[in-house]
Amino acid sequence: MISEKNYELGSRSSIIREIFSFGQMRKAQVGADKVYDFSLGNPSIPAPDSVKRAILDLVETQKEEIHAYTAAAGDMGVRDTIAQSLNRRFDEEFTAANIFMTCGAAASLNICIHALANEGDEFIVFAPFFPEYRCWVEGVGAILRTVRPEAPGFQIDFEDFERQLSEKTKAVIVNSPNNPSGVVYSEETITRLGDMLREKSREYGKPIYLITDEPYREIVYDGCQVPFVTKYYRDTLVCYSYSKALSLPGERIGYIAVPKRVQDYERLMPAVAGSARVLGFVCAPSLFQQVVARCVEDTGDINAYKRNRDLLYQGLTRLGYTCIMPQGAFYLFVQAMEEDAAAFCERAKKYDLLLVPSDDFGCPGYVRIAYCVAEETIVNAMPAFEKLAKEYGK
Amino acid sequence: MISEKNYELGSRSSIIREIFSFGQMRKAQVGADKVYDFSLGNPSIPAPDSVKRAILDLVETQKEEIHAYTAAAGDMGVRDTIAQSLNRRFDEEFTAANIFMTCGAAASLNICIHALANEGDEFIVFAPFFPEYRCWVEGVGAILRTVRPEAPGFQIDFEDFERQLSEKTKAVIVNSPNNPSGVVYSEETITRLGDMLREKSREYGKPIYLITDEPYREIVYDGCQVPFVTKYYRDTLVCYSYSKALSLPGERIGYIAVPKRVQDYERLMPAVAGSARVLGFVCAPSLFQQVVARCVEDTGDINAYKRNRDLLYQGLTRLGYTCIMPQGAFYLFVQAMEEDAAAFCERAKKYDLLLVPSDDFGCPGYVRIAYCVAEETIVNAMPAFEKLAKEYGK
Repeated sequence: MISEKNYELGSRSSIIREIFSFGQMRKAQVGADKVYDFSLGNPSIPAPDSVKRAILDLVETQKEEIHAYTAAAGDMGVRDTIAQSLNRRFDEEFTAANIFMTCGAAASLNICIHALANEGDEFIVFAPFFPEYRCWVEGVGAILRTVRPEAPGFQIDFEDFERQLSEKTKAVIVNSPNNPSGVVYSEETITRLGDMLREKSREYGKPIYLITDEPYREIVYDGCQVPFVTKYYRDTLVCYSYSKALSLPGERIGYIAVPKRVQDYERLMPAVAGSARVLGFVCAPSLFQQVVARCVEDTGDINAYKRNRDLLYQGLTRLGYTCIMPQGAFYLFVQAMEEDAAAFCERAKKYDLLLVPSDDFGCPGYVRIAYCVAEETIVNAMPAFEKLAKEYGK
Repeated sequence: MISEKNYELGSRSSIIREIFSFGQMRKAQVGADKVYDFSLGNPSIPAPDSVKRAILDLVETQKEEIHAYTAAAGDMGVRDTIAQSLNRRFDEEFTAANIFMTCGAAASLNICIHALANEGDEFIVFAPFFPEYRCWVEGVGAILRTVRPEAPGFQIDFEDFERQLSEKTKAVIVNSPNNPSGVVYSEETITRLGDMLREKSREYGKPIYLITDEPYREIVYDGCQVPFVTKYYRDTLVCYSYSKALSLPGERIGYIAVPKRVQDYERLMPAVAGSARVLGFVCAPSLFQQVVARCVEDTGDINAYKRNRDLLYQGLTRLGYTCIMPQGAFYLFVQAMEEDAAAFCERAKKYDLLLVPSDDFGCPGYVRIAYCVAEETIVNAMPAFEKLAKEYGK
């Protein structure tokens, strides 16, 4: 009687949430310090002080309009501030008109997908990929095609990518720095991606859009530079969220940025607005629009994540685990010590180690370890990781 | 190439927004005090002090978790507080499990529609109705059927309602206190509505759900009681928003409440979660979840709206305008002085009077006057209303 499709989506709770719930139960049983929960991508470092100062100042001194509806695309001053910041940092030419404020990355992505998709269109993603992509693409009646993982470096398997491209391809979604691998696409990868998309767009006589999902853009280490994709490929829609870099995941605030030179721009921006409307997003939260404008180039203390990464990477490789050293985000993507990653995670649970199997990311045989946790969680978890490795003869 | 449907939705900007933009331009030309802008339902009275105190206290004293992801359905403590408040006020038996926090009424409604709808299902609304209903119902591939207005009282035309009901009816949407008429459905109306839905559900051997859209529930005058619909009809989904009563429209915070006794409840709540997921709502804004829990029974100064209503109603009827005295919301629904309400509004513009024609609300021949404005706007607008009436020989 009710919507079968949405019932399925809601009842098949995500594996990540399931593990998290198990963790909550175990913490109540044995104590929080005895459970090593690496399941969730919830930033562990606090929002920078500037966020707190911005909220206090806005609420104490500003007019009541801080809680009023903004235009559907967001407050003009906020959009202008963000445009200017992007121009400064990435040599772009955005104005407020190119920025559409959203309720975070999920909203940004889903709005872009809805703005582009017609029945039967195909969207391509690269494994490993964020599982919600499937939900949004299929939700609008389009088809998700996945490109096989390019292990162990997790750049792009261009051979398989070329096989997946066709006249039906409406858009390609990239997520770099990547969840779950932590990998940052190199300039070489992005250049080659742009070249192939240009070639195929020409061949098919229609644009293939590139959607970038980049909430982790500022969370990079070792001086790593994340290529700003609009500079490498014209028909790019940028999806951003302040969830990770400003540690505001619950506040649902982000944006879509579309350069004016993008093909069919004059029709695309109204389609973005129409998609936000049909999905039920009236405007992005008004107070936090102002907050992010005041903190537009701030981040939390990214160094804390770097320390966690180094500690975890060194500890695990010393114990015989295999993984690459990621340059961004806050995930380590480690090979499971048996073929079935889910079975490996079940075994890890015996030691109260909560890891996420990689199957839902379209890349079997790995586990995602979210190291956005307190440093002592990593230190204290090492004996458990050691016992787990021993079970596999390491 | 892009989504034609969503391009249309986004480019056909709503008439309300168009009038509002015209007003902004005129204000720049002739001065804000010379333009009488009654176009938008943006609360004019400030949020109560308790909102400010809650934000300051949460940000100054609480842990960083106030900005973290909550569960998709919302923070358990917040949901429990809301459930208890509804139980106290409306003699209900809600627990946290019955409450799903959302990004405001638009999200609440769209999530409920997605949770219920299958291809070809019909949803019934009563004219005059909020135009976005059409956008959301058709957005999910369902069909909107409208019941003709029951002028001049704008309760329900039950004869026409019965004609519209069929085996295809999945749900009926009611909005009381009503936007745009300001009318509150009487207990008699709600009772009769419940009776008819029960009868038809039995006849068709399937539930017909009732969705209530009630952001104006607390904005009522003259001691008016708004019947709490779950007490009159079992299969009711309540959609609420804090936009109007707490003057927080830009913050996007509200909830869905579904009693446990609703038919297919055990599958309906997962479908609600699945719908929120497929639409891209990750969770309701986390800080404002806590804020509304602390202000759960507060409102702005509703009396200011009452003074506006009385002033406007008395002024307009004295000048020869015809309308009913509404008991709720902050709209006066006035008969246009010629058949074509849009032409009437065009003529009003000559006097810098910005009114909204009723055509998009499915009820031609009226104008909506949003009196959530400063009192002096009403006082100063009276000579303009007088000149307009004189053009029609009043």
